Amino acid sequence: MKQIKGGVTAAKGFKAASTAAGIKYQNRQDMAMIYSEVPCDVAGTFTKNLVKAAPVKWDQRVVYESKKAQAVVVNAGIANACTGEEGMGYCKQTAEKVGELLGVPEEQVLVASTGVIGKQLPIDRICAGIEVMIPALLGGYESGHAAAKAIMTTDTHEKEVAVEVELGGATVTIGGMCKGSGMIHPNMCTMLSFVTTDAAISQELLLEALQADVEDTYNMISVDGDTSTNDTCVLLANGMAGNAKITEKNEDYAAFCKALNFINESLAKQMAGDGEGATALFEVKVIGAETKEQAKILSKSVITSSLTKAAIYGHDANWGRILCAMGYSGASFDPEKVDLFFASAAGKMQIIKDGVALDYSEEEATKILSEPEVTAIADVKMGDATATAWGCDLTYDYVKINADYRS
Amino acid sequence: MKQIKGGVTAAKGFKAASTAAGIKYQNRQDMAMIYSEVPCDVAGTFTKNLVKAAPVKWDQRVVYESKKAQAVVVNAGIANACTGEEGMGYCKQTAEKVGELLGVPEEQVLVASTGVIGKQLPIDRICAGIEVMIPALLGGYESGHAAAKAIMTTDTHEKEVAVEVELGGATVTIGGMCKGSGMIHPNMCTMLSFVTTDAAISQELLLEALQADVEDTYNMISVDGDTSTNDTCVLLANGMAGNAKITEKNEDYAAFCKALNFINESLAKQMAGDGEGATALFEVKVIGAETKEQAKILSKSVITSSLTKAAIYGHDANWGRILCAMGYSGASFDPEKVDLFFASAAGKMQIIKDGVALDYSEEEATKILSEPEVTAIADVKMGDATATAWGCDLTYDYVKINADYRS
Repeated sequence: MKQIKGGVTAAKGFKAASTAAGIKYQNRQDMAMIYSEVPCDVAGTFTKNLVKAAPVKWDQRVVYESKKAQAVVVNAGIANACTGEEGMGYCKQTAEKVGELLGVPEEQVLVASTGVIGKQLPIDRICAGIEVMIPALLGGYESGHAAAKAIMTTDTHEKEVAVEVELGGATVTIGGMCKGSGMIHPNMCTMLSFVTTDAAISQELLLEALQADVEDTYNMISVDGDTSTNDTCVLLANGMAGNAKITEKNEDYAAFCKALNFINESLAKQMAGDGEGATALFEVKVIGAETKEQAKILSKSVITSSLTKAAIYGHDANWGRILCAMGYSGASFDPEKVDLFFASAAGKMQIIKDGVALDYSEEEATKILSEPEVTAIADVKMGDATATAWGCDLTYDYVKINADYRS
Repeated sequence: MKQIKGGVTAAKGFKAASTAAGIKYQNRQDMAMIYSEVPCDVAGTFTKNLVKAAPVKWDQRVVYESKKAQAVVVNAGIANACTGEEGMGYCKQTAEKVGELLGVPEEQVLVASTGVIGKQLPIDRICAGIEVMIPALLGGYESGHAAAKAIMTTDTHEKEVAVEVELGGATVTIGGMCKGSGMIHPNMCTMLSFVTTDAAISQELLLEALQADVEDTYNMISVDGDTSTNDTCVLLANGMAGNAKITEKNEDYAAFCKALNFINESLAKQMAGDGEGATALFEVKVIGAETKEQAKILSKSVITSSLTKAAIYGHDANWGRILCAMGYSGASFDPEKVDLFFASAAGKMQIIKDGVALDYSEEEATKILSEPEVTAIADVKMGDATATAWGCDLTYDYVKINADYRS
């Protein structure tokens, strides 16, 4: 497996386009499209929030009924959530427009929206944007990169990643882009993530691979504990790499899953590190757990603790808050057996041994915690299971963004 | 029932004292004592955090084994949590010291601590503080008021309340004080709350009354979602009012419970409104629910949503975030049936009808949301159950306090 430059257009046969449709933002692109030269098998995972945005409901039908998709239309600025029948109608109109112009069945067009909840989409601008983008669809790095920028809301930078992997006698590429900064606490999937691959793989296995992997990637990040109404991750596979089609859980499937995990973990970490107002990516590894589920509950509890997140912002080795967050997580462990370490590019040090603080240097700890990527490792000494969760620090800017911005 | 001036010394026979013991703070009192002239029946509820502070473990023994208490010693500055055997030893030494000087069995002395986790108590200063306070124990308003100040950490003001109620042929008084500002998300009880009464009531019913009431009061507030290691609420009843002793669930018991609820709800709301950095008390009422449990889950989900809390700080009628938080709460309801209202001293207005926004005035909504106490009312139109939760807004100062302060 080899990481390569690129994102959603890295795999063979995928094109992208983007435009400034004027949905909400001025002076920037705010719509993007992804298109595959041939129909794709499609997998998707979606928010578990009871309040589901219209595009989530639309895409669920594409994934579970059509099982095929050839185009994706995304807009930033308005989420098309809490918009009733009217909002559902706009999803259909969007898909119809794309279908008409590209000769694709409307039920094979995915739509996704992100932004303010409760406002209706300006459907004329959406349709005008589609008319501009379709003739501009292009393969290659630049168009995918521009698309990754166009779907941003409060994100401070675009997020994309791609890898190549040899499987089934061919070089298979997987690439993806995502956006997400606030309202990030995916309970099924991340805010908006689009992954494309030229692998040939059955739709059934594609869905299984994605569903399993989101549990360890997108579902392990949190910026603010708020699970969005729009969380969507879709994975499109067009089979153009020419590999022997994966139809069973063989070695090729394992290699595909490994590469997919690399893509999803990278995108998930990019989102956590770019959490609204964040200055640091905060990684929490729980090791020595009895079960993976236990390790996940403990690690997620720490990355969602406001007090711990504020301490990370202050570069303060406030380990009591970490132990406290583990204690109220609901998972069982013996507080008097816990070892805790802090690590970053500046070094690694043990803070607690058997639940009691060591005589560590606060200065040294602060140095470790001042890096842009910081890790806490908690060993609960009960077994061999581990889990990792990713979050970010809680800063003035998080408050500023969310007190001032109607998102 | 009549609200009266006072707190923990309002009921007959209760005295208090406080002192500057130099535990952590300079130039302020940081220790307090409560003492009853006669032994009290005692009830208590404690944190469900797996990481329990030493005084929590000590007090649980007092409540469940001794069932009697006559004195309480509280310190601010150091939590005596994650302090192992040494920390437990300090609880014992504290109780022994009080017992020795007051002629009370050590197992009838409650201890409570709040402050930084992981540091050991300076036991010499604690004992010196006790020596100063015991001769200074005094009934009346001032000593209770001073005690309420002495137990504060990041609280901006003291919190106390008292009522009189006629029952069993006598005037019974209940009064209380509490502290709590950060790390407030009680899962059993609030951070530190001390309620005293001169009612005569069996210890069994006292415990039952308290346990039931904390579910609707302290357990319905949240500042930051972090459940403390030290949450403690104790209720002392010394029987000195001379009422016919309450030994069954009769009218007197109901009247006592009603008065207790007034005290606990008042203290709980005082804590939520004085949340770290808060500028507003944020109350969320869910009405029309099928069950009380469902209404509680929905209302708590909204008051713990960082995005909603930040919007309240910005006086922004960002109702989408409220619906979103209800949606990911785990409780079921039909988003397309929800009515939502905002209310405060400045008025009341409907924002959503049947899940869709009305054409309301943003200006008017902002006016309502600019008051120091703000209420959101969500009607889910499924039944008759209701619940209320209390939180506060999320502000720059919350971040400042917790990034800079080793609490």
